[in-house]
Amino acid sequence: MDNPFFINNGPFKFKDILKELGLKNNQNSQDQDIIDIKDLQNSKSNEITFFHSKKYKTEANFTKASYCITTKNLQNELPKSCIPIIVDNVLVSTSLVTAKFYPDSINDNFDITVEEINKTKFKDKVKFGKNVLLGKNVYIGSNCMIGHNTIIEKNVSIGENCIIGSNTIIRNCLIRNNVKILDNCVIGKHGFGFFPSKNKNLRYPHMGVVIIEDDCEIGCGSTIDRGSMSNTIIGKNTYLDNQIHIAHNVRIGENSIIAGQVGIAGSSIIGNNVKIGGQAGVSGHLKIGNNVEIAGGSGVIKDIPDNSKVMGYPAKNIRQFLKENR
Amino acid sequence: MDNPFFINNGPFKFKDILKELGLKNNQNSQDQDIIDIKDLQNSKSNEITFFHSKKYKTEANFTKASYCITTKNLQNELPKSCIPIIVDNVLVSTSLVTAKFYPDSINDNFDITVEEINKTKFKDKVKFGKNVLLGKNVYIGSNCMIGHNTIIEKNVSIGENCIIGSNTIIRNCLIRNNVKILDNCVIGKHGFGFFPSKNKNLRYPHMGVVIIEDDCEIGCGSTIDRGSMSNTIIGKNTYLDNQIHIAHNVRIGENSIIAGQVGIAGSSIIGNNVKIGGQAGVSGHLKIGNNVEIAGGSGVIKDIPDNSKVMGYPAKNIRQFLKENR
Amino acid sequence: MDNPFFINNGPFKFKDILKELGLKNNQNSQDQDIIDIKDLQNSKSNEITFFHSKKYKTEANFTKASYCITTKNLQNELPKSCIPIIVDNVLVSTSLVTAKFYPDSINDNFDITVEEINKTKFKDKVKFGKNVLLGKNVYIGSNCMIGHNTIIEKNVSIGENCIIGSNTIIRNCLIRNNVKILDNCVIGKHGFGFFPSKNKNLRYPHMGVVIIEDDCEIGCGSTIDRGSMSNTIIGKNTYLDNQIHIAHNVRIGENSIIAGQVGIAGSSIIGNNVKIGGQAGVSGHLKIGNNVEIAGGSGVIKDIPDNSKVMGYPAKNIRQFLKENR
Repeated sequence: MDNPFFINNGPFKFKDILKELGLKNNQNSQDQDIIDIKDLQNSKSNEITFFHSKKYKTEANFTKASYCITTKNLQNELPKSCIPIIVDNVLVSTSLVTAKFYPDSINDNFDITVEEINKTKFKDKVKFGKNVLLGKNVYIGSNCMIGHNTIIEKNVSIGENCIIGSNTIIRNCLIRNNVKILDNCVIGKHGFGFFPSKNKNLRYPHMGVVIIEDDCEIGCGSTIDRGSMSNTIIGKNTYLDNQIHIAHNVRIGENSIIAGQVGIAGSSIIGNNVKIGGQAGVSGHLKIGNNVEIAGGSGVIKDIPDNSKVMGYPAKNIRQFLKENR
Repeated sequence: MDNPFFINNGPFKFKDILKELGLKNNQNSQDQDIIDIKDLQNSKSNEITFFHSKKYKTEANFTKASYCITTKNLQNELPKSCIPIIVDNVLVSTSLVTAKFYPDSINDNFDITVEEINKTKFKDKVKFGKNVLLGKNVYIGSNCMIGHNTIIEKNVSIGENCIIGSNTIIRNCLIRNNVKILDNCVIGKHGFGFFPSKNKNLRYPHMGVVIIEDDCEIGCGSTIDRGSMSNTIIGKNTYLDNQIHIAHNVRIGENSIIAGQVGIAGSSIIGNNVKIGGQAGVSGHLKIGNNVEIAGGSGVIKDIPDNSKVMGYPAKNIRQFLKENR
Repeated sequence: MDNPFFINNGPFKFKDILKELGLKNNQNSQDQDIIDIKDLQNSKSNEITFFHSKKYKTEANFTKASYCITTKNLQNELPKSCIPIIVDNVLVSTSLVTAKFYPDSINDNFDITVEEINKTKFKDKVKFGKNVLLGKNVYIGSNCMIGHNTIIEKNVSIGENCIIGSNTIIRNCLIRNNVKILDNCVIGKHGFGFFPSKNKNLRYPHMGVVIIEDDCEIGCGSTIDRGSMSNTIIGKNTYLDNQIHIAHNVRIGENSIIAGQVGIAGSSIIGNNVKIGGQAGVSGHLKIGNNVEIAGGSGVIKDIPDNSKVMGYPAKNIRQFLKENR
């Protein structure tokens, strides 16, 4: 993922990374600079990566990273050019290092850089309500409207002919053209992702953004969280009704229609031309095909192939469900 | 429906209506004025109506409209006094024409006419918080309170002794007396109604309003959409808890109690003295009788007769459901 | 319950209490002062209590209250030192008397005492956004941040290192240290508690507060209602996702994780280390044990013992549910 917004605070010395992880330095290269943290496939020389599951063995075999956070059991899969950093919990350690490189990706403190829109260069270009606030690194295209009390925080790009409602908060978000976002939404906050811990849960970084493609509409009171290591995406001409929750890393295709109070859990992928009835829920890490119809109130807990109609909890073929539930 | 708020932009010449629909003019009356668009029953001479289903045959036989948007198959049901306008999709064409007459009914852009309440005539009459905004065509009765950051947009009438919370947005709404609307609500936006289309969905007009009768209470974070061709109505002394979604054209009776996170889909009618438990959902276009009790979490997908208690998904007789689900 | 915020408007003469209840005074002690209203166990001499169910017979036998609202059938359980006040509906009458002593506990009108934070003593201590409002009787610890348009109404205490988002409203709430409350929340309003009545429902008082313990996180768009006669409590290091509704008197333990759009009805008690999946619902007055896991979308309608995993509606053992629903 190309991360357009979060600033890399590196490079860091190898010894400082080890210190962050509470590890002793028994390596020789303690003063070497580490430039960035990426996944196995995308990382390069002088960068650090992570490897936590045999599933990614092939990627590990060929990684170009100079360092890799991993476990004792997995370390032998790495090439000689890659120095293993042995830890107990790879994901927790990766979070700590990522947070060191990208500290802004872990917090969602309110944006202290905002100023009133009528003190910015957008004051003559945008039609805006009372008390509209814009943060740093915001771009707004031509012919847009922004309602009262709305806050466009840092790191937002809005295309042309977009209409943003009132009392809405947007951050870390790419909004294309002809998009409507209605009132009282919160778009682009970090997802509900953390490592549970008795004393104090550990948040993991959310370096992704929310991308809302052309011609979408997002209903009132909806929340769309930004991705952690990838982006949350709403496809072209997809309409969301009120009070919908889209979790981090979710990708929704084009021309889909999602009715009120639906929730889609983290990292699920929804196809094109999908219709989801009100209050339905989709569990995390699922793949919902194209042209799928999910009846209102259903709970989907497994993948759904293209062109299916499902209903119930757990959601199954709609004819079967209705036959069994007369 | 008498539409109290949206302004008729007509009359339009017949040829301009045809142009809007992308039709050739093979009629003689191309310069005649068309005054308004109404349904079959209510339209009069020099007005246009629409006829899309055999269900409405009788109304079509006796319509007084001078023009009617309809199909080839249905046109012969119209009286001689009514000129048929033959289209492929009656509802899409009707939407286009309605939007021409009532352009404001299709958009919900933030209200640019608002001003701070302390610059209006209500400043001495209403008890209000900081940053309260009022639009044009707003009336507020005696002894009302309006909380901080609340926006009463265009076309709202509020009765006596009403209490509106903070961060709430209200538009196109008739609120009677002794009504409480709590914080963070959005009342009166257009419904989730449109004609799906691959390239760009087509919104249909929402000319209705939301009517909230005497003594109602609406909980925090709730959304109530205004009707399309009829009104959305919350009956006298009905209480809604937090995070409830009431879709367009829904009518709820008197003395009903609706618990948190319930959703009621478009055009459903709920009776008097109805109790709906938390997170229950009611599908669209249903009729729920008087004195009905719907258990929390249920999904109602068919009409429910008076005095019934239902539970489950699909909701059925509560005793039967509990017997089957021990 | 010690009530830290609501001010006792008493004492009231015994005759005034009787008048409030529409009762004739056939007692001799009509001019005696009544100081406060409490439950059977905690009330003392010159205070009034209430007794509405045989369940509380023992407490009634030993109450030290001088007066007790009760029924004809129950009055003989009271000691001689306690004068019974015979009514038709004990809870309704208790509400009326409680509202007389604590009028502020029944209304949630917006806080007219608020002023902009930069006019308060907290202006140099707190990092704050635009348009932040603080009411009377608010305390904020060191190193806190409060986002734009947020309203901290009367009767709120915030500990150290807390982060409050934007557009959030908080009242009647004790927030400990290191707590994060995200955007668009409403915390501490009265619960959805009232006595239904044909003409006009009768609200009962909500004298409790919301207590949010150390290290909690509350997601965007969530609502947490304050308790009626006890408090609503979120235990240490418990995380709530977006759009969650926690009703009045609910108590959630430590280290629990609650996913998006979950609803927990009034007076339920949730243990420690509980995990609740998205959109699940828990009915009122239930006890969910420690280490319980509730699958997303489930509807819990009975108590769940420690260490159980449940799923479905009604929620049952997860293995059994999945076996029955292949």
